[in-house]
Amino acid sequence: MNATINIFDLLVIGGGPAGYEAALTGARLGLRVALAEAGALGGTCLNRGCIPTKLMLGATCAIEELACQSRLRLASGAAHVDLAALQARKERLLAGSRKAMAEALKKAGVEVFAGRAKLMPGNAARIAAEDGEKTVGFAKCVLAAGSRPGYPRSLAPDGDAVLDSDAVLALETPPQSLMIVGSGAIGLEMAEIFSRLGTTVTIVEAAPRLAPSEDPEIGNALAQYFKRKGVAVLTGITAAGVAAFEGRARLSLENGEEFFADKALIAAGRAPNSAGLGLEEYAIALNAAGFIETGADLLAAPDVYAVGDVNGRWLLAHAAAHQAAYAAGHAAAVLAGNQAKPYAPGVIPFCIYGGVEAMRAGAAAEELARSGADFTVSRAFMAANPMAQAHGQTAGLVKAVWVDGRVAGLAALGHNASTLATPAAMIVAAGWTRQDAERFIFPHPSLDEALREALLAPAVRP
Amino acid sequence: MNATINIFDLLVIGGGPAGYEAALTGARLGLRVALAEAGALGGTCLNRGCIPTKLMLGATCAIEELACQSRLRLASGAAHVDLAALQARKERLLAGSRKAMAEALKKAGVEVFAGRAKLMPGNAARIAAEDGEKTVGFAKCVLAAGSRPGYPRSLAPDGDAVLDSDAVLALETPPQSLMIVGSGAIGLEMAEIFSRLGTTVTIVEAAPRLAPSEDPEIGNALAQYFKRKGVAVLTGITAAGVAAFEGRARLSLENGEEFFADKALIAAGRAPNSAGLGLEEYAIALNAAGFIETGADLLAAPDVYAVGDVNGRWLLAHAAAHQAAYAAGHAAAVLAGNQAKPYAPGVIPFCIYGGVEAMRAGAAAEELARSGADFTVSRAFMAANPMAQAHGQTAGLVKAVWVDGRVAGLAALGHNASTLATPAAMIVAAGWTRQDAERFIFPHPSLDEALREALLAPAVRP
Repeated sequence: MNATINIFDLLVIGGGPAGYEAALTGARLGLRVALAEAGALGGTCLNRGCIPTKLMLGATCAIEELACQSRLRLASGAAHVDLAALQARKERLLAGSRKAMAEALKKAGVEVFAGRAKLMPGNAARIAAEDGEKTVGFAKCVLAAGSRPGYPRSLAPDGDAVLDSDAVLALETPPQSLMIVGSGAIGLEMAEIFSRLGTTVTIVEAAPRLAPSEDPEIGNALAQYFKRKGVAVLTGITAAGVAAFEGRARLSLENGEEFFADKALIAAGRAPNSAGLGLEEYAIALNAAGFIETGADLLAAPDVYAVGDVNGRWLLAHAAAHQAAYAAGHAAAVLAGNQAKPYAPGVIPFCIYGGVEAMRAGAAAEELARSGADFTVSRAFMAANPMAQAHGQTAGLVKAVWVDGRVAGLAALGHNASTLATPAAMIVAAGWTRQDAERFIFPHPSLDEALREALLAPAVRP
Repeated sequence: MNATINIFDLLVIGGGPAGYEAALTGARLGLRVALAEAGALGGTCLNRGCIPTKLMLGATCAIEELACQSRLRLASGAAHVDLAALQARKERLLAGSRKAMAEALKKAGVEVFAGRAKLMPGNAARIAAEDGEKTVGFAKCVLAAGSRPGYPRSLAPDGDAVLDSDAVLALETPPQSLMIVGSGAIGLEMAEIFSRLGTTVTIVEAAPRLAPSEDPEIGNALAQYFKRKGVAVLTGITAAGVAAFEGRARLSLENGEEFFADKALIAAGRAPNSAGLGLEEYAIALNAAGFIETGADLLAAPDVYAVGDVNGRWLLAHAAAHQAAYAAGHAAAVLAGNQAKPYAPGVIPFCIYGGVEAMRAGAAAEELARSGADFTVSRAFMAANPMAQAHGQTAGLVKAVWVDGRVAGLAALGHNASTLATPAAMIVAAGWTRQDAERFIFPHPSLDEALREALLAPAVRP
C-alpha cells in the first residue's frame, strides 16, 4: 500500500450528472476535490440515456411531423434517417461534451482519477486506475455511482437478440421488428424512435396500462397514440422469459404463448451501481432493490453522501445534479463548522419525450387518492389547442391537481408537452391559486395556454 | 330612429380576442352585455393572424426539420405541403372556432349584433345590421375594434401583385418569388412559411437589422439564419414604392434601383380601426398614428374603454384579452358602485414563430440603455443546448437583463424558443435572483436549461 496518501476535502465517486455537479460545486466552494470515474464522464445521461435519445428523437422529428400532416392529407413525401450516420454524429457530440466536462473539471482544479473507486476504512478509498492503484483520503465523500439497466434473470439481455437500452442505443441499422419489454420513459422513447425509423414495434407491459408511473389518463392516451401509429401495445402481459431463438428474440408468456421479433429491448427498470463500492466498511445500508439508503441530508454514513440514481430517490439527471449540489454545499458547510440545512427535494419535473410527450410536476392524483388526501382535479384537452392542431397531433390533455385551493400537481400529454414541464414546475413550486392563473398572461397562441385552460376549468372531485 | 332602445350594461364593439373576452367577462360578472361585430368573430388573430400563420408553420414544420437534418447529412427525402389543401383545412378549423365562440357568447347570454357599430350621443350606438339599423343604449362601452394592415400610400397593396398579410394568407399556391417589405413578426413568419413552401423570398427592411423591435443580437442572428436558408436579406433599404409592373411586383428604391418578384407582401405595420366609430361624439382622442388614447384605467372617455390593438399599447392578442378582462371587470365594479383598481399591464410575453423563434418578456437591454438605467446582461448560446443540437438548429441565444440583482427581462432566439416565453414571463414577473435560478430544478434535457444557463452566466455591463 502506498504510504503517501493524497488527502482531499471531498472525494466524488462517479462522473455522471451528479458527480460532475458535486465536484464543481465543491471546488467553487473552495474545497480540494477529487473525482473518480471508471467509465466515461457524463455517465448514463450523456452517454447512454437522455442525450442520445434526444438526438435520435430530434433527428427523426421530420418523419413524425410529416406523418401527422400526411394523415391530414396536407403533405406528401418521405423522410429517411441514416441511423449509422446519426450514430457517428452522436459519438462526435458526446466526445465533445465529455471533453468539455474534463476541461471544466480541470479548470476548477478538480483532480480526476480514471478508475473504479472502493471505500476503505478510515476515510480513504482505493482507486484502480490504469497507471496503478492509488489510495486517497477524504474528509467527505459523495457516492454518485449511478445506475445501469436492470432486469430479472429471465429477461437477461444477451447483447445480440436481446438488448438492454445501452445496446439498443448503439444499433447502426434499425431492426425489422423490435419487442420492447417495459413502458417507462426508456421503453416509450425507444418505441417512438424505432417506429419512426421503420421498425415494427411491439410494446409489452406487465401493468394494465402504459407508463404505469404516470396518470392513468396519460397512460391510456399514450396507448391510443401508439396504436394509431401502428405500434402494437400489449398491456397486462407478464413475460415469463425472453431469450434468443434461432437468431431472433423470443418472448414467452406463462400460458405458453410466444412472440417473436428480430430484437427485444428489455426496458424493465434500472439497477443501482451499489456493488463493489466498499459500503460495508461504513455500514452503509441498502434497500431491498439495492439502492443506498440516505437520511434527511443525503448522508449514507457520517462522512459519506449518496446522490443521484444510486440512492434510488429519483432516476433523473436534473434531480441527481440538484442533490449533488446540495451534498457538496452541505459538506463545505460542515467542514467550515457551519450549520447546514436539511435537503429539500424541491419540485422535480419529469418528462417522457416523443411524438406526444408526457410531463408531470408535483403531486399526482393517484398518489393523493392512495394517501386519502382531499383533492380536486381540473382538465383541458389538447384537441382545442391551436399549436396541437397546427402540428396535426391533438392527442392528450393537461390535468391539474388541487389541494386547499392551490395547484399541488400538473401532468400533461401532448405534442411538444415536455415544454410544459418548466412552467408546470414553477406553478407548483409557487402554489398558484385560480386567481394567479387568471392574472398571468400566457402567450397566444401557445401550448402553454392548455395549462391555463386546465387551471381555469371547473375543479371536480375525482 | 327607433323609439324603443335596448339598454345594455355593457356594449362591446368588436368580436376579436379583446371583444370576446370583454363580453364573456362582463356576462360572468352579471352584466347585460351586447357585442357588435361587423366581420367575423375572432378578429385578426383567429381569421387573418396568429392562428392561420401557426397552422401554416405547423403544417410545414417537417420541411424545415428535414432540411436541418439533411444539412447534417443524417436525413434524406423531401416533404411537400399542398397549400390549397392547407387553406381548406384552415377554413374548416376557423369556421369551427368561430362557431364555438358564437355558442359560448350565446350560452353566456351575450346578445350579438352582426354589423358595424357607431357611437351616438347619450351613451348609445347605432348598429348597421343586415336586418336593418338598430340603436342600443349602454351604461359602459368597450371599444375593441382592432387593427388592419397599415402602410404608406407608396406601398399600397393592389390585392394582386402587391399583397397585405390578409391576402397573402389566402394564397392557394405559393408564388415563385416573394418580396416581403418589413421584418416584424408578420414579415418574418411569412418569410419562413413561403421559404418552406419553395418560394424564393427576399426580405426588405428599412431598419439596419431584422426584427428592429427585438434585441440587436437577435435581429443579427435572425439575418444569419435566413441567409443560411437561402432567403435574401436586405436591411437598411427604404422602399420608395411598390407597385404592379407587367403582372409582377416592382419595388423601387430612392436611388432608382429596382427589384422584382412575382408577389410583394407589405408587412410594414398595423393601422388602427379607429375611423367610423363616432369617437368625436365622446371627444375621444387619437394619437399621431390614429390609435385611441387611453388613461390608467383604459378609459378613452368617461364611459368608454378602448382595449386591444385599437389603443395601440400592444398589438398582441393575449395582451388584448387581458386588457379586455380588466375593462369589463372595471365596468362591473363601477356600475356596482365599487372601487376599481388601476390597470396593471403585467408581464406580456412576445413571440416570433418559425424555424428559429424569438421571444421576450420584460425589459429589453436597448430600452434600459436609452433610459440611462443601470443594468447588466448575461447570456447563454443555444449552440451548447442538447435540444438545439438534436434538431440540428443551434442558432440563437438567451439574454437576461438584470436590474438591482433581479431579472428584469429575458429575450431569446432559437429552435422552439417560443416555448421559453411562458417560463421567461414567470421569471420576470417573480423577479428572480441568481439564487432563485440556482434553486429551481429545470428538466434535463430541455431548451429551458438555456434560460438557467443565461441566468447563471456572469452578468456584465453592456
